[in-house]
Amino acid sequence: MKTSERVRQILSWYPSDNPGTLTNIARLLNHGTLGGTGKLVILPVDQGFEHGPARSFAPNPPAYDPDYHFQLAIDAGCNAYAAPLGFLEAAAAKFAGQIPLILKLNNSDTLAKLEPCSAVTGSVRDAVRLGCSAIGFTIYPGSSARNTMYEEIRELTEEAKSYGLPTVIWSYPRGSNLAKDGEQAVDVTAYAAQIACQLGAHVVKVKPPKDVIYQEEAKKVFEKYQIPTKTLTDRIRHVVQSCFNGKRIVIFSGGEAKGTDAVLEEVKGIRDGGGYGSIMGRNAFQRPRQDAVKLLRAVMDIYKG
Amino acid sequence: MKTSERVRQILSWYPSDNPGTLTNIARLLNHGTLGGTGKLVILPVDQGFEHGPARSFAPNPPAYDPDYHFQLAIDAGCNAYAAPLGFLEAAAAKFAGQIPLILKLNNSDTLAKLEPCSAVTGSVRDAVRLGCSAIGFTIYPGSSARNTMYEEIRELTEEAKSYGLPTVIWSYPRGSNLAKDGEQAVDVTAYAAQIACQLGAHVVKVKPPKDVIYQEEAKKVFEKYQIPTKTLTDRIRHVVQSCFNGKRIVIFSGGEAKGTDAVLEEVKGIRDGGGYGSIMGRNAFQRPRQDAVKLLRAVMDIYKG
Amino acid sequence: MKTSERVRQILSWYPSDNPGTLTNIARLLNHGTLGGTGKLVILPVDQGFEHGPARSFAPNPPAYDPDYHFQLAIDAGCNAYAAPLGFLEAAAAKFAGQIPLILKLNNSDTLAKLEPCSAVTGSVRDAVRLGCSAIGFTIYPGSSARNTMYEEIRELTEEAKSYGLPTVIWSYPRGSNLAKDGEQAVDVTAYAAQIACQLGAHVVKVKPPKDVIYQEEAKKVFEKYQIPTKTLTDRIRHVVQSCFNGKRIVIFSGGEAKGTDAVLEEVKGIRDGGGYGSIMGRNAFQRPRQDAVKLLRAVMDIYKG
Amino acid sequence: MKTSERVRQILSWYPSDNPGTLTNIARLLNHGTLGGTGKLVILPVDQGFEHGPARSFAPNPPAYDPDYHFQLAIDAGCNAYAAPLGFLEAAAAKFAGQIPLILKLNNSDTLAKLEPCSAVTGSVRDAVRLGCSAIGFTIYPGSSARNTMYEEIRELTEEAKSYGLPTVIWSYPRGSNLAKDGEQAVDVTAYAAQIACQLGAHVVKVKPPKDVIYQEEAKKVFEKYQIPTKTLTDRIRHVVQSCFNGKRIVIFSGGEAKGTDAVLEEVKGIRDGGGYGSIMGRNAFQRPRQDAVKLLRAVMDIYKG
Amino acid sequence: MKTSERVRQILSWYPSDNPGTLTNIARLLNHGTLGGTGKLVILPVDQGFEHGPARSFAPNPPAYDPDYHFQLAIDAGCNAYAAPLGFLEAAAAKFAGQIPLILKLNNSDTLAKLEPCSAVTGSVRDAVRLGCSAIGFTIYPGSSARNTMYEEIRELTEEAKSYGLPTVIWSYPRGSNLAKDGEQAVDVTAYAAQIACQLGAHVVKVKPPKDVIYQEEAKKVFEKYQIPTKTLTDRIRHVVQSCFNGKRIVIFSGGEAKGTDAVLEEVKGIRDGGGYGSIMGRNAFQRPRQDAVKLLRAVMDIYKG
Repeated sequence: MKTSERVRQILSWYPSDNPGTLTNIARLLNHGTLGGTGKLVILPVDQGFEHGPARSFAPNPPAYDPDYHFQLAIDAGCNAYAAPLGFLEAAAAKFAGQIPLILKLNNSDTLAKLEPCSAVTGSVRDAVRLGCSAIGFTIYPGSSARNTMYEEIRELTEEAKSYGLPTVIWSYPRGSNLAKDGEQAVDVTAYAAQIACQLGAHVVKVKPPKDVIYQEEAKKVFEKYQIPTKTLTDRIRHVVQSCFNGKRIVIFSGGEAKGTDAVLEEVKGIRDGGGYGSIMGRNAFQRPRQDAVKLLRAVMDIYKG
Repeated sequence: MKTSERVRQILSWYPSDNPGTLTNIARLLNHGTLGGTGKLVILPVDQGFEHGPARSFAPNPPAYDPDYHFQLAIDAGCNAYAAPLGFLEAAAAKFAGQIPLILKLNNSDTLAKLEPCSAVTGSVRDAVRLGCSAIGFTIYPGSSARNTMYEEIRELTEEAKSYGLPTVIWSYPRGSNLAKDGEQAVDVTAYAAQIACQLGAHVVKVKPPKDVIYQEEAKKVFEKYQIPTKTLTDRIRHVVQSCFNGKRIVIFSGGEAKGTDAVLEEVKGIRDGGGYGSIMGRNAFQRPRQDAVKLLRAVMDIYKG
Repeated sequence: MKTSERVRQILSWYPSDNPGTLTNIARLLNHGTLGGTGKLVILPVDQGFEHGPARSFAPNPPAYDPDYHFQLAIDAGCNAYAAPLGFLEAAAAKFAGQIPLILKLNNSDTLAKLEPCSAVTGSVRDAVRLGCSAIGFTIYPGSSARNTMYEEIRELTEEAKSYGLPTVIWSYPRGSNLAKDGEQAVDVTAYAAQIACQLGAHVVKVKPPKDVIYQEEAKKVFEKYQIPTKTLTDRIRHVVQSCFNGKRIVIFSGGEAKGTDAVLEEVKGIRDGGGYGSIMGRNAFQRPRQDAVKLLRAVMDIYKG
Repeated sequence: MKTSERVRQILSWYPSDNPGTLTNIARLLNHGTLGGTGKLVILPVDQGFEHGPARSFAPNPPAYDPDYHFQLAIDAGCNAYAAPLGFLEAAAAKFAGQIPLILKLNNSDTLAKLEPCSAVTGSVRDAVRLGCSAIGFTIYPGSSARNTMYEEIRELTEEAKSYGLPTVIWSYPRGSNLAKDGEQAVDVTAYAAQIACQLGAHVVKVKPPKDVIYQEEAKKVFEKYQIPTKTLTDRIRHVVQSCFNGKRIVIFSGGEAKGTDAVLEEVKGIRDGGGYGSIMGRNAFQRPRQDAVKLLRAVMDIYKG
Repeated sequence: MKTSERVRQILSWYPSDNPGTLTNIARLLNHGTLGGTGKLVILPVDQGFEHGPARSFAPNPPAYDPDYHFQLAIDAGCNAYAAPLGFLEAAAAKFAGQIPLILKLNNSDTLAKLEPCSAVTGSVRDAVRLGCSAIGFTIYPGSSARNTMYEEIRELTEEAKSYGLPTVIWSYPRGSNLAKDGEQAVDVTAYAAQIACQLGAHVVKVKPPKDVIYQEEAKKVFEKYQIPTKTLTDRIRHVVQSCFNGKRIVIFSGGEAKGTDAVLEEVKGIRDGGGYGSIMGRNAFQRPRQDAVKLLRAVMDIYKG
């Protein structure tokens, strides 16, 4: 697939990166149904680690099998498939060259309720060895352990860049220093996205923000400068702007499983606000296979729009 | 630009440093409108990480874009531009060779209210790779985590010096062991500056001190030896003296955004007290571009005297 | 592009390689006009180093420009482009993600007439940094320095595999221990191909063999077992068989510039003998651009059969 | 200066050290007015870091300048000058070869009142690079963080010895586990000196002990064996004995600034008890320069006795 | 000095390099009288090592002093000063920040007449420590030891790039495999330049070529394609084209000392053929100081044209 003008423009915003890193960003952007459009739909499957197997896979038992997700991502025409070490190792050789892979380098289980801080469960060299096109990492701004995660990803990003691997940061505000209603507040989401960008992320993933402003100091600013936050489109636009004025790729998670109409409505809001795409796990793999493929294609149709 | 007598004198005060480090100190001192005068005006933009995007950039939305700040620093004739990893990576190649860069190696977000301790978010090798002329680092004397920061910067400074990179320390007294009114007290500010110098900083940045003496033991000394603290000029003089009798470069932050007259008045006080210059972020980039350039030039005019 | 049954079969013959290496072999096989057919046409441009600039580029002066060859390989629909460090560095970022790259890690100039032994002029980490999909290396069986080269590639291959990079070996019998007419003899060519395979090459490149049997001991065997060598197709078949019974990819160089008919005739022979494809330099880039594209497409048409 | 019999004897008590370390101990013992006598007077200036600049230098403002202290130590004929990184770096090249230097590797500020634990603010490699003859380090027996400091100095001492650098340990009992009146008790001081010796120090620095016995168990022993503690000379003798029966160099700090007679009286007590000398900071540099030189010479006259 | 459009264009031809390397190329191009024009005049002084002191410096004895050459390069407005380790170490701190430095990493003496192969006499870390803006290295195509030099510079270039230092290659065809009249033949010079470019050089230095074609195979090509070689301008143009169609900086040495008119005539030819500038040693420093400054300025005037 030839690289489009839009992809070239996006790559031009990463001028400090070596050709290897640019090549892998291009691979993410050029693959699948949305290849060349500058939009992405990624299938992430880390819920087995994060939520446990039954909660993740019982709704659609073939999804217990690691092969299942590779094939789903390929058949649906996704740009990439992201998962922890175990799931990737289980089938990376079998599907070699068929879809760009993202190795999620840290993960957190929920057996114990602790201050949120993921464990580093994979290495950059694992990603290289498995033929991945990027590394993934989760940070929890608002956690007392946030600095630990910021310092880990700093080190991993530097190493990954030296191997030509871009970094995808999942930035989820969460922790004992943040009330529940702050986690998806528009000011907090935009702040979390900015932190990921400043840490050197090439791609940022956040949740679609809600119409809440959480921080006192931010409230004053939103009011004074009349930053609109009423519609999802408004809020997405603010988050995109907070990602270096749109010069960093920012995609939005689908969150918990919901109805098809709700999913597609949200995707339209993301598109209209200038978001770069979606990363959609449970809404995909917890549906029966044909429904999942159908939904993902419908999502892509909206982005192609 | 040829190196002036004044710059040569300043360099002579760093006799233990290798020629690479001296070369980069000279680059900071020789660049821009104030090049050769021995004075500096630096543009720092770390507020996206430290305060969040809307609070930082909504007052002047073009500032969401990382290119904006490079261009502002260049056009205003600043000596250098300082920012975290993400902002520098986004445009360092595009503006290569146009302005000395300072990579801020640690940063702290304010989503959670915790004992102040910045996370290390960049490496010395990042600074080398990006063509920077110095590293920057924040310490919080008064924080329970101060020793962690002192030990981090000790290690980073040693590494940086081996690569010919000088160190700029932002020294901000803050933390649960220090009352609010102590943070900018003149004795505390001078002490914070001294600590930075003893840690091996080549350039120290503190806030302009207020006419308060915070520590009991210091109060006795200030009284006994009649150290004047009434005017800003008096207090700057004491801080400069506390920086190895003026043999370490000490510059002053502009603090929160304020009116032009207030900014310029403060700068005159800094100049008259023998300060080496200003590091001015929000007062610059939160103004419309033309106003910012105008203000920075007015500041430089004062230093040029 | 989806991975075909044929590509899957080829990949199955490299079961000891990690998924990264398989992914990069798949990238070579899945890219361009021949993507998915299991056939390859590669553009190699190392003649500037090997023969000098005028001999290489004067016939078609735009070819002095490193960008030219990237664009030619892309427009002609080649599977990959191979070149030494300088040529790749000059444009790898500009064409990032548009065509798989092979970094030729050793090269030999012809200013001095010495026993053939290429200098190592690039590293595996260079290949990683530039986003390459493979490394390339030349060995000269028959040279007194052959063991030096065998040992160098052994080390480089091991390192490359750890980064997921396959190895392409150019195997050219040559040197003071081999008469001129032995260099392209069918027994010698097959032997050279076997050596490359045994050294761990994933892809082998040899010259199309001539109807000569050079070694005394080989002559007896070819006669005894009536191995046919009369037609190019016969000889290619023997070489393919010598590459682990066809389980290693073996491609054939075009050699010095010649007429279009001669080129295409040869390609048909390669195809009919089961060769995996062609690596065609001077016959491509020394022609005017449109002719080169036309010729390469004609070659691909033959392989697509 | 030739090494005297006495210095030879002292060196003989460090038989496990390499010749580099012995050479540096000899440098300390052979330099200055007391060279060859086996006695030492050292100028330490770490108060800028430990107490703040005004408290340290306002009584004698030229002392704000790092050059001042080098020159004072040289002119007064001291054996060595000890300071933190910043002060040494500021002038080590200028005064190279004129006086042995001791780099104080850890320091503690007093802006926050926390459990005493110095930060490591310099490295052994810094000491090597600056041409120092020893490293210095403070431990606070009695602090909850004592083990951290013991483990740090253990590691640093091992590294320093490998580079031929002896270690000077400042051993100051202090912390939440020790009442104020215990800090200079004779039993506690002797115990602190012993700990430093057992940690591998070549030179130990303690405060002159007071006629107090702090520990219950110690009290019984002092009484039973009638260890005299009434005069300073008695108590010094006990401390010297506690330093491996006098086979480790132990010197005494001057403590806070006081009158000349009081200083000299104390020094006589140290001499008569067999102490190796004094380390005298504030009593020297807080006096006007001529008075300081005069005082230090008077101290040396007593030791030369 | 602001970066001109021309400098930006030149930098755009090094898209695989990190911002640090681009910054240092910009420093070379932006400094001195020719700053911003895209042209360079560099002062190289390695003749003390290469030819011996009397042959080098007796014609102008102040040139025995290392300071002399720094000051000459600064006063004449050169873009950079290049020398071996000893000469740079002798004054790099004194002239820190006044002129970009190039550390020549290998050098060859002529006390013994051996097959030409320079010794590596400096390291990349030396260049970093001394604040250099580039490394320099000599290769001798035509020498039996050429591969040794190619492999050394490959390794040094990779290391230098990681520190943001560009590479200048002196490419001098020479050795027992090349007749004397081949050393400056136009085909050989162009070939030597191409080899340097393929090895990853950012700047190439060759001698001005003579109207001789040395290689048999090249002769045929020059004739067939009627490549003009009669005037120096013709020949320079061919060399520039051989440097990646002018996308690598190629400068020309002045060679042995000669009259002012001859020097200036040659420089005009270099300029008219599109050469990037001159590197002029003996013709500069063997003249009396005022004459040297005058000559270098006259050379720069021609390039400013």
